[in-house]
Amino acid sequence: MMMFANKESAGLMKSNIDQSLKDHLPTYIKEVVRLCAQPSVSASGEGTDDCSQVVVSLLEEHGIQAQSYSGYGNPIIVGRLQGSSDRTLLFYNHYDVQPVEPLELWTSPPFEPVERDGKLFARGVADDKGEFIARLAAVDAVRHAQNGELPCNILFVLEGQEEVGSPHIARFVTDHVSELACHGAVWEGGGIDPDGHPGTTLGYRGILYVELSVELMNRDAHSGGAHIFPNAAWRLHRALGTLKDLNEHILIPGWYEHVLAPSSKDLELFDNLPDREAWLRRQLGIKNFVNDLHGKDLMKAVFNPTCNLDGLTAGYQGKGMKTVTPAQASAKVDFRLVPEQDPDDLFAKLRLHLDKQGFEDVQLTRLGAMWPYKAPADDPLVTLTSLTGEEVYGKSALLDPLGGGSSPAYAFAKPLGITVVDAGIGYWDNRAHAPDEHIRIEDFLNGARHLARILSGFGR
Amino acid sequence: MMMFANKESAGLMKSNIDQSLKDHLPTYIKEVVRLCAQPSVSASGEGTDDCSQVVVSLLEEHGIQAQSYSGYGNPIIVGRLQGSSDRTLLFYNHYDVQPVEPLELWTSPPFEPVERDGKLFARGVADDKGEFIARLAAVDAVRHAQNGELPCNILFVLEGQEEVGSPHIARFVTDHVSELACHGAVWEGGGIDPDGHPGTTLGYRGILYVELSVELMNRDAHSGGAHIFPNAAWRLHRALGTLKDLNEHILIPGWYEHVLAPSSKDLELFDNLPDREAWLRRQLGIKNFVNDLHGKDLMKAVFNPTCNLDGLTAGYQGKGMKTVTPAQASAKVDFRLVPEQDPDDLFAKLRLHLDKQGFEDVQLTRLGAMWPYKAPADDPLVTLTSLTGEEVYGKSALLDPLGGGSSPAYAFAKPLGITVVDAGIGYWDNRAHAPDEHIRIEDFLNGARHLARILSGFGR
Repeated sequence: MMMFANKESAGLMKSNIDQSLKDHLPTYIKEVVRLCAQPSVSASGEGTDDCSQVVVSLLEEHGIQAQSYSGYGNPIIVGRLQGSSDRTLLFYNHYDVQPVEPLELWTSPPFEPVERDGKLFARGVADDKGEFIARLAAVDAVRHAQNGELPCNILFVLEGQEEVGSPHIARFVTDHVSELACHGAVWEGGGIDPDGHPGTTLGYRGILYVELSVELMNRDAHSGGAHIFPNAAWRLHRALGTLKDLNEHILIPGWYEHVLAPSSKDLELFDNLPDREAWLRRQLGIKNFVNDLHGKDLMKAVFNPTCNLDGLTAGYQGKGMKTVTPAQASAKVDFRLVPEQDPDDLFAKLRLHLDKQGFEDVQLTRLGAMWPYKAPADDPLVTLTSLTGEEVYGKSALLDPLGGGSSPAYAFAKPLGITVVDAGIGYWDNRAHAPDEHIRIEDFLNGARHLARILSGFGR
Repeated sequence: MMMFANKESAGLMKSNIDQSLKDHLPTYIKEVVRLCAQPSVSASGEGTDDCSQVVVSLLEEHGIQAQSYSGYGNPIIVGRLQGSSDRTLLFYNHYDVQPVEPLELWTSPPFEPVERDGKLFARGVADDKGEFIARLAAVDAVRHAQNGELPCNILFVLEGQEEVGSPHIARFVTDHVSELACHGAVWEGGGIDPDGHPGTTLGYRGILYVELSVELMNRDAHSGGAHIFPNAAWRLHRALGTLKDLNEHILIPGWYEHVLAPSSKDLELFDNLPDREAWLRRQLGIKNFVNDLHGKDLMKAVFNPTCNLDGLTAGYQGKGMKTVTPAQASAKVDFRLVPEQDPDDLFAKLRLHLDKQGFEDVQLTRLGAMWPYKAPADDPLVTLTSLTGEEVYGKSALLDPLGGGSSPAYAFAKPLGITVVDAGIGYWDNRAHAPDEHIRIEDFLNGARHLARILSGFGR
C-alpha cells in the first residue's frame, strides 16, 4: 500500500504533525483534565448527562459538528468532519467510566485529575477519556500539517454506557446505518505491550452473561433441619456442576456447534507473539493456569469458549458461624463466545439443558450478551495500523488474533460492513477499572502520533 | 416413682405453687423486662458484662448465692441454693442473645421490652432470659408452698456465649466437676408443640462447623482471561462436590464409622410423634423435602448425619454484571453429627479426604464443634418431666428421640454423669433468633408451673 505519494513531502508532513502535537500538548492535557473532572459513572448515572455535554463542547471547539442522540439510554454523541476524499474513518469511544470504589485506595481523588511523575491520574483518563482527546489532537495535527485539510472524513461516535455492557449501541447503529456509513473504524483501547511493541487486536470474543438462582423455601431455616430442608446452595451447586467437566469442556448440548477453529493465519500470528507465561504468573501470583497450560498454549486457549463463575452468593457470609440452611442461592456466570457462536442460540440451549437435567426450578436470567467479532488479518486498515505503529514506536507490531474480552465492535462491523482495529494510548499497568487509573503523558503523545498517521494514510 | 408421699398434701402443695406463681406474676414479668432491657449480644460483645451483673443481682435478690467465673470468655455465673435433701438439680441457661439485625423488621425496639396481646416482645425474651426468670419463679413458688424449704439443692449455671457456640463451657465444666456435681439437669428450651403437647428432647446432634476457602490469584482478574486464569469459585465448587452424593450420603471415607443406628425404643418414640409434614411444608413453603422424604420418614432422618452448606461467597454479588474471575472463594459448611460421631475424628478425616482428592490448596478452618448427646428414654428425670408436663398441660407428653440441632448438653452430661432434659416456656412461633422474638405470658406461667413440679419431685 502506498501511504504517501511523495517520500519527501510525507516525511515533512510527519515531522509537522509531531511538532504540532508537541507544541500543543499542554492544551490537550488541559482538555483531558477538564473531561476527567466531570464524573460520568454509567453504573450509578452520576454525571453522565453533563459529561455528554462536555463531549459536545469539546468536539465543537475543535471545529467538529456534533449531534446528541437520545432514545438509546445515555446520550450517544456523533461528531462529523469533512475531509478531502470520499473515504470515512470512524472513531469509537465512550465517555462513561467505571465506579470509583474502593475510594480509599486512590492516592488522589478520582475526579480531581492530577499529574505526578509524568503520569496523569483520574478515573476514566485511560478508559476512555484520554484516548478521545488524543484523537481530537491527532485530527488537529493532521489538519495543521496539511493547511487545514483532512485526507478523509471522520466520524466520532461516543457512547455513555460502555461500562455497563453497551445495551443500546447495536440498535443505534442498525437504526443509523446510512448516517454511519464508513470504510473502517478505530476502536477504543490499544497501545503498547509490556515490551513497548505496538499492536492491534483482530477481534473480540462474544459473551453471554446469566444469573442462575434457586429459591426452595420462603425463608432460611435452622440447619438443625438439614436432613429434611432443601438447601438452595446445594441445589445451585448441582446445577452448576452440569455445565462443564473438570477439563473445562462445556457440557451443554450443541454448545460447540458453531465454533470455528483458529485459522492457519491465526496460528501463525500466535508464533509471532511473545510468551507471557512468566509475566502473567508474576502479575497475578498464579501457580497453575487452567488445565495446567503453559507457554504459547496459554494464548491459543483464547479460542476455547469459557464458562466462568463471576460470583456466588448464598446464606451466611459474615465472620464465624451461623447455622442456616439457605432458602436462596444465586450464581453469576459468563460464557465467552468465539466466532461464530451466537448468544441467542446458546441462551436457549442453556435453558433447555437445565430443564433436561431436571433443573426446571433453577431460574435463569439473561443479564447481557455480545456477539464475537473477528477482523481479517490482511485488511488494509490492519496493515496501515501496524506499519504506522512500527514507525512511531520503532518496534515490530504484534497482531493478536482474538482478544479474550468482549466489545460491541461487532455492532459496527457487521451492519456497516467494515473492519475494526484498535490503536491508542494504553500500556499494561494503566489501572483501568481500578484505583489510581492513569495514563503516561508520553503514551498520550505517541498514541496521538500513531492515530494521526493512521488517518493521514487512510484517505489515500 | 413416688413423687409425693401423701396425695392430699401433694395436691395442696401444687395448688399453693400455682397460686403463688399467679399472685407474683407481675413481679416476674418486671424481672423479665429488666433483664431483656439490658443488651447482651455475644456476637458483638454489646452489653454482655453488664448483663452478667444483672444476672448476679437477680439471683441474689431471690436469695441465691451467686458467683461469677472469669477466664472462660464472657463471665459464667453459678448460683447455689441449699435444699433439704442431698439431691441436686442443675438448671442451664444463658444470658447472651442473638444479634438484632435486621432491625427494620422489629415492630418495637428489641431492647425495649413491651407487652402486646398477652405477649412480651424483646430480643432474648424467649431465648433465653424469660426462661431463666421462670426458673427463679419456680424456685420461689416451691419454697413458698413448703414454708421456705426446697426439696433438693439447686445449681444455676448461666453462660454468656451460647449464641456463639459455647466455646468455653466444656472446659469450664471439666475444670469444676466437683463444684458442679449434681444428679440431673434441666436444659434451656422446651415448651409445648403446635398442638399444645409438652415434651422433652432426648438428646442433640453434634456439629462440626468448618470454612473451606480457596485463593488462586493475588487479585480478581478480568473474565476475558477465563480460558487461562484459575477460578477460585470453580475450584471451591469442585472440592464441595466431593463431599456428598446426590442422595445426601457423605463421601468422606470413615464418616459413618461410629454412627449408631436408632434403637428400637427410638423408633417406638417416633411412632408416638405427630406427623408434621403438612405443617412444615406450609411454614417454610417447601415443595420437596430432601430426598423427597414424606411423613414419619422426615423425623427418622434426624439420625442421618448431614453436610449443610451454610453460606457461599465469591466474586461479584451486586446487581447486574461484573465480568470477573474471582481470586478467592469460600464456603461455610456444617456437619451435624449423630451419636457416637466425634468432631475431632471427623475434622481429621475431612482434611485427609480433601488432600487425597487433590485439594491440598483448599484451606480448611474449624470454626466450631460440639459432640452429640443422647439421654436414656427410661431415666427417672425423663419420666418426671413427662408426667409433670402432662399434669400442667393436660395433654400427653411427647418424647423426641433426638433433636436436629446441637447444644453443649454433652459438656455437662458426660463429665457429670447425669441425664439432661428440657422443659420451658417456648412455643413454636416465638421467633427466637428472629425479629419480634416474644413469649406468651400464659406459656411463662405454665412453664414455671411445670418447672416447679419438676424440682418438687426431684428431691424425693
